[in-house]
Amino acid sequence: MASSSTLERAPDTRIATKKVVVIGGGTGNFVVLRGLKDYENICLSAIVSMADDGGSTGILRDELGVLPPGDVRQCLVALSKSDLLLRNLMGYRFENGGLGGHSFGNLLLSALEKVTGSFESAIQEVGKILVIKGNVIPVTTHKVRLKMILSDQTLLEGEKSVYLSDQIDRGYRDIYLEPYPKANPNALKAIAEADLLILGPGGLHTSLIPNLLVDGIAEAINNSRAKKLFVVNLMNRKGQTTSYSVKDYLHEMSRFLGTDPFDYVLVNNKEPTPEQIERYLEEGDLVRDDLGDDPRALRAPVLDLHLGQPQKGDRFPRNFIRHDSKKLAEEVARLVDRL
Amino acid sequence: MASSSTLERAPDTRIATKKVVVIGGGTGNFVVLRGLKDYENICLSAIVSMADDGGSTGILRDELGVLPPGDVRQCLVALSKSDLLLRNLMGYRFENGGLGGHSFGNLLLSALEKVTGSFESAIQEVGKILVIKGNVIPVTTHKVRLKMILSDQTLLEGEKSVYLSDQIDRGYRDIYLEPYPKANPNALKAIAEADLLILGPGGLHTSLIPNLLVDGIAEAINNSRAKKLFVVNLMNRKGQTTSYSVKDYLHEMSRFLGTDPFDYVLVNNKEPTPEQIERYLEEGDLVRDDLGDDPRALRAPVLDLHLGQPQKGDRFPRNFIRHDSKKLAEEVARLVDRL
Repeated sequence: MASSSTLERAPDTRIATKKVVVIGGGTGNFVVLRGLKDYENICLSAIVSMADDGGSTGILRDELGVLPPGDVRQCLVALSKSDLLLRNLMGYRFENGGLGGHSFGNLLLSALEKVTGSFESAIQEVGKILVIKGNVIPVTTHKVRLKMILSDQTLLEGEKSVYLSDQIDRGYRDIYLEPYPKANPNALKAIAEADLLILGPGGLHTSLIPNLLVDGIAEAINNSRAKKLFVVNLMNRKGQTTSYSVKDYLHEMSRFLGTDPFDYVLVNNKEPTPEQIERYLEEGDLVRDDLGDDPRALRAPVLDLHLGQPQKGDRFPRNFIRHDSKKLAEEVARLVDRL
Repeated sequence: MASSSTLERAPDTRIATKKVVVIGGGTGNFVVLRGLKDYENICLSAIVSMADDGGSTGILRDELGVLPPGDVRQCLVALSKSDLLLRNLMGYRFENGGLGGHSFGNLLLSALEKVTGSFESAIQEVGKILVIKGNVIPVTTHKVRLKMILSDQTLLEGEKSVYLSDQIDRGYRDIYLEPYPKANPNALKAIAEADLLILGPGGLHTSLIPNLLVDGIAEAINNSRAKKLFVVNLMNRKGQTTSYSVKDYLHEMSRFLGTDPFDYVLVNNKEPTPEQIERYLEEGDLVRDDLGDDPRALRAPVLDLHLGQPQKGDRFPRNFIRHDSKKLAEEVARLVDRL
């Protein structure tokens, strides 16, 4: 077809493409990626934690010995340019019997991992089927468990246990992955070549920090020539980050990064509605903005004012206070234009 | 791209395309379709029985209330022009836990039936993913069970029970689908427009006849202007069709068709190896060719001399004496050229 290419619109070479790498896991990544997907000048990669072991993902890990597919699936769907049907299919959850609770996308990734012998090949294949824009990269390809030792010596085994604990904000002695995993070279490469690195939003100890516990990742982030953006959570989860301020988040991140490397800190400045606050009250409190005149602060109304509806198959109650994917993307795109 | 199409090779309009419709279910369809897929002058459709209720398919019917995906999946794979990986994925069987025994392709079809609300839409979507050449059409879209009443009044409920019975060749009083289903209009249309209809090979009472028990199918076959080919099984299954000759097959088919409509009867004339016969002895006996000088007889060496290996996840022992897909296709293609 090369001979006919002159008949088509040539790519607009005036647009300089920037490499944006999102590091996380869970729904936080999804919100950032979904909005950024539509920007033609942004080349996206998502680096995904491999610590998830709850729900359908946990069962597949236990029964098939595969890497955790759930968060990768969400990133693939966020980056998908395919029609709604295929994206809905990926999130479809079987309801009854031995299949009950499994999302179809998780089964697809796990079956492909078995057939190809490699989780990364499975991601490639699903990426083709879903026509994704960008890359989804497991932070490690080793099979790991997240563990946490609380102040009273209680050992929390597995990401699900950490997620469900309401004792974490009383302090903990240690958090680590077992066995201690090497970073995926593709993740290190993406971080090194990035123009902008984005960490957050997401569960601090369950989605963000597990990436930094992988050998080589924190160092790669610090050494990367990329600008670094931290997107602060809107809310604290009760028992996990109760009463955390923005500075508390930055402080906790820097414990694992060895430094505070962030060039920008994006903080929401829009008040939730009274209805949102009331419905979230059981879950936690609003993150307090104590950045003051810190020049790194980017304040913007990135809150979604719509109430999230609980969905069939949700493992845990869905956040009623969430980032607005589109507005978040606008802020990031503005930043990218300045790079 | 239309403006550049003159640069490409124009379709060879000298080849007149013929419509070939295969009616059956189970692995019989697969063998015929796989070989015929590569003939550019043949437009293929597969009409598939909806009576299957064993194994993974049976569980999905019971737990999700879907139409039986197993035979449709096999036809889709047989017609697929996609790479080996996707075809292997469709047949991949999960090994452990609640997923154990399910083939991935069955889960894909069932999840898509749930998401789209229609089994035929699900087939369309999988057809796109697998890049199939041709059409796969459920003989009915009603949910039916195959039932058989034996001579001693024993009621066999479900295709699996019929398949497992070793009492059928002692005679039976009735075989029927419950509830009595209307034919899928797309199946009737395909039969009416066909140039060649192929029935067989396949389980006589479990794959072939269940199609003829659907309201309108036998009539459509008789009324179709298509030439009709019956591909006779190589072997009889013990307790099902013990000692059947070719004429016995034709006689049994004609009971449900109301007439013997076949223009051609394809009979294998190649002897199995002693090793094949020995290994199949437990399963049944060779079909005796008693067609004599019947002008409809097409005799050809369509036996596969390779021994089939049992595969993981096989519900029942795999036939060690099978049709050779390629040779079968050559005979059919020769017939098509004469139409």
